[in-house]
Amino acid sequence: MSPILQLADIQAIRERVLEALGDVPSLPRRPLPAPPPPSPSTIGRYLDHTLLKPDATPAQVRHLAAVARQRGFAAACVNPRFVPLIVEVLADAPVAACTVVGFPLGATTTPAKVHEAAEALTAGARELDMVLPIGLLKAGAYRAVAEDIVAVVGLAHGWNARVKVILETGLLTREEVVAAAVIAQHVGADFVKTSTGFGPRGATVDDIALLRAVVGTEMGVKAAGGIRTYEQALAMIRAGASRIGASASERIANEAQATLGSHG
Amino acid sequence: MSPILQLADIQAIRERVLEALGDVPSLPRRPLPAPPPPSPSTIGRYLDHTLLKPDATPAQVRHLAAVARQRGFAAACVNPRFVPLIVEVLADAPVAACTVVGFPLGATTTPAKVHEAAEALTAGARELDMVLPIGLLKAGAYRAVAEDIVAVVGLAHGWNARVKVILETGLLTREEVVAAAVIAQHVGADFVKTSTGFGPRGATVDDIALLRAVVGTEMGVKAAGGIRTYEQALAMIRAGASRIGASASERIANEAQATLGSHG
Repeated sequence: MSPILQLADIQAIRERVLEALGDVPSLPRRPLPAPPPPSPSTIGRYLDHTLLKPDATPAQVRHLAAVARQRGFAAACVNPRFVPLIVEVLADAPVAACTVVGFPLGATTTPAKVHEAAEALTAGARELDMVLPIGLLKAGAYRAVAEDIVAVVGLAHGWNARVKVILETGLLTREEVVAAAVIAQHVGADFVKTSTGFGPRGATVDDIALLRAVVGTEMGVKAAGGIRTYEQALAMIRAGASRIGASASERIANEAQATLGSHG
Repeated sequence: MSPILQLADIQAIRERVLEALGDVPSLPRRPLPAPPPPSPSTIGRYLDHTLLKPDATPAQVRHLAAVARQRGFAAACVNPRFVPLIVEVLADAPVAACTVVGFPLGATTTPAKVHEAAEALTAGARELDMVLPIGLLKAGAYRAVAEDIVAVVGLAHGWNARVKVILETGLLTREEVVAAAVIAQHVGADFVKTSTGFGPRGATVDDIALLRAVVGTEMGVKAAGGIRTYEQALAMIRAGASRIGASASERIANEAQATLGSHG
């Protein structure tokens, strides 16, 4: 990976990127409630319980949502086709129905992402994890990246829904991570998120620390990809993560419970 | 993998699947011209030159299309966002502009796939490689799988475009491969295709032989995923493939040329 960036480097990237954005709208965002301090009994409020495998069956998706509801996780996150199914299972529980947009490549068109988002919102999704157009970011087409993100953010905010922007940090240099986070924050996205789980690697503590350094305290930072233990989850939270995406959420919550048992 | 299927097994699966489809339309398809017998000088007509990496830049996509045009490949295949770019580069060349739909998970909604397809066709794409809903196939929801595919096929045929249905054979049992091919053929798709290149494995000679046994001679069979040499391409063609998807198309064509040189 590229060398450690200093705050001055981040500031220089921020200025360069914002200048390139021109008159792309900077949408307001609702304040994001801070999660409670992490502990074995609060860890569930950090967890997006996730099942995005292409061969997941309706029965498996239904089970995932039931577990998310029973354990009080932050969200259940599944592929777009299954949104109606989890909305039904989650009903009035305080667990967000979450889905993905332009996932996992981010390389479809902006109208296709908007259409997919609109359908998910209509069906009851209230969190959308969208993948930004990675090849455009790499080509320095920051304005096109911003236009792609803001189109989904504007739509979602009209539904009181949140948008997490997936960067796929495993494909990016540190400079590109900073540029992407600056863009996501500027247009009004609610979270930056590290990874799809389908890329070359998942989240690292370095990713999270860098993202938190760029976006400050006003946005969420979601760590995803390869997080399978309570210890890993805590390391991400200490580095600045406010949300953890994992298919192993149940195991993470169980490990946290076991910690309680051994001390109490 | 599951045991070898006999023709009687295939026939039994066919009957069971077709019965489940009810009144899902069986659309006519245009005859598909057979490719010329494979040889070093005709191999290019089998090749879909492909770049679907999420971090591909516009410059790389442009280069891919220029190579496909110069070498006379069957198609250039890129992510939806880049269709206008390859259509411009390919102009009137006899090389199809190809893109992907619901890629690579196949788990978005049918309307989202239709919207993505419509945009690609409007922009000039004439081949669409769509991923079927794998989790529904596994759950035996054959009718829902057929409705998903036929929605895209009907739209595409109205544009004189071809549809390839990607099965992701690496996630399927042999029985599921047969069921998927029966569905794709029944609704009028133009090709069955083995893999996305993002799944657990690419095409195998076994996959191709099984698919050809199911669909007979009226449909195309596309081998994709992990094919990097002329020898591998020939093995797939001998097993029944009429199209090869590869990012290594240039290398394959060069190896074929070298074969000519060493004999001539």
